[in-house]
Amino acid sequence: MTSSTKLTLVSSNKCFNGEQRVYSHESSEVGCTMKFGIFLPASALDGTKLPVLYWLSGLTCTEQNFITKAGAQRVAAKQNVIIVNPDTSPRGCNIEGEDDSYDFGTGAGFYVDATTEKWKKNYRMYSYVTIELIDVINENFQTIPDRKGIFGHSMGGHGALICALKNPGLYRSVSAFAPIAHPTKCAWGKKCFTGYLGPDDHVWREYDATELVKSYNGPPLDILVDQGASDDFLKEGQLLPERLMESCAESKMPCIMRMQEGYDHSYYFISTFIEDHINHHAKHLHG
Amino acid sequence: MTSSTKLTLVSSNKCFNGEQRVYSHESSEVGCTMKFGIFLPASALDGTKLPVLYWLSGLTCTEQNFITKAGAQRVAAKQNVIIVNPDTSPRGCNIEGEDDSYDFGTGAGFYVDATTEKWKKNYRMYSYVTIELIDVINENFQTIPDRKGIFGHSMGGHGALICALKNPGLYRSVSAFAPIAHPTKCAWGKKCFTGYLGPDDHVWREYDATELVKSYNGPPLDILVDQGASDDFLKEGQLLPERLMESCAESKMPCIMRMQEGYDHSYYFISTFIEDHINHHAKHLHG
Repeated sequence: MTSSTKLTLVSSNKCFNGEQRVYSHESSEVGCTMKFGIFLPASALDGTKLPVLYWLSGLTCTEQNFITKAGAQRVAAKQNVIIVNPDTSPRGCNIEGEDDSYDFGTGAGFYVDATTEKWKKNYRMYSYVTIELIDVINENFQTIPDRKGIFGHSMGGHGALICALKNPGLYRSVSAFAPIAHPTKCAWGKKCFTGYLGPDDHVWREYDATELVKSYNGPPLDILVDQGASDDFLKEGQLLPERLMESCAESKMPCIMRMQEGYDHSYYFISTFIEDHINHHAKHLHG
Repeated sequence: MTSSTKLTLVSSNKCFNGEQRVYSHESSEVGCTMKFGIFLPASALDGTKLPVLYWLSGLTCTEQNFITKAGAQRVAAKQNVIIVNPDTSPRGCNIEGEDDSYDFGTGAGFYVDATTEKWKKNYRMYSYVTIELIDVINENFQTIPDRKGIFGHSMGGHGALICALKNPGLYRSVSAFAPIAHPTKCAWGKKCFTGYLGPDDHVWREYDATELVKSYNGPPLDILVDQGASDDFLKEGQLLPERLMESCAESKMPCIMRMQEGYDHSYYFISTFIEDHINHHAKHLHG
């Protein structure tokens, strides 16, 4: 990252008196063009420096899903926070097999830095999110660099949790919707970790929130998790939030998990509780 | 319409403590399978009879655009109104040319009853919306049949206005986002009216809000219109809201048109002002 990072404006739409924009840029971490969404409240457009809340999306998503479906702009405008949401993987890298399945490769970067030969050059979403993207945003927009929060959904809920747990102090707040909370023990996680990190499951733990909570040593994280009780992926054992809760309890990590009766894994669920989450972050980001 | 109308549940997602559902049914008016979205607030699921607000979408939309992007469920839940939103045209009728353009045929029913030979059997969206759909909803859900409102966007804003203006007393409230307010004088309207109604532009007037306002004779309609000032279709002369305003002024029809600085034609615009519109309807529907 240097100050020469050039952003290309893809779209801009006025929304709740601010602007929902999409930009693309050449990423040095992942070696391809990346897109991200950014919602700038009216006060940011007027030059006021604001905190930034990062959203990480789930499997198959681009930057579009969150900005069109979550209804976050209304609350971000009210709370005066910028929301940035990157794409979920590198795209178009011409890696053999990258488009073979919905849950590995394109749309499924899993927020790790790959170490296997085939993927290690491009699949560096962990460093992209925690280093490069933050630099790009702070360089190009009016932000308060030390006031950052992170949240996400499903694979992106996992991403938000590990980014916060692996970098004590980097984010002031973290929350998740239906996160893949213990990926070393579920099918989605095993598939991605094997592909991106290789067969040794000891190294997988460095990207598993339930494991990372045990060794976390930093300022307290006030974790908020919402989980739909009728989420099919919960029933299939892909999410395992109960294991994260056990781990938090053992480690005395404050974590509120709300089991939401009747809700599923969709953006209908996310839109229902997005206000609670943004309010939770705003409390820490403005506090 | 008989009591034998069978609805098939396509999807159901819990949302803001109610349910966003999609149903399909065999329509006798348009002679094919039609889908609609329906948001049922929690009290409707508990058996309370509620008013129904109908939403009509714009060109190219299905029932999905509104239910995923408008953010209406939050406000409908708060205001205790059911929202129903049909598809924008018959589909799959195997009419030659039905899929040739985005602004005629599939996705572009224009809320008229066609009279031209090729289209008159299926393209009866006006009767579908104002008769059959209302019957289907009242038969199958807990509604207050005489408390109905209607609103929509672009082609659907036109649809909402003409449905209300042509049927005094049928709807208690009407509003529109960026409506095609004077279709007999814009390219979209001329194309659809020629195709569905034939070349005689005198008959087109029966489906033109700006014309219908002049002959309206019924209970006062408290019309609310929001229009983005940066809407490209406004600049192109497709919408002509100023003509509707002139017509309302001449006819002493109460109409508030709000020109919204910087907003475009997208669902980002709609989502920003959807709360104002639903509140406007709720005032009349619960009053």
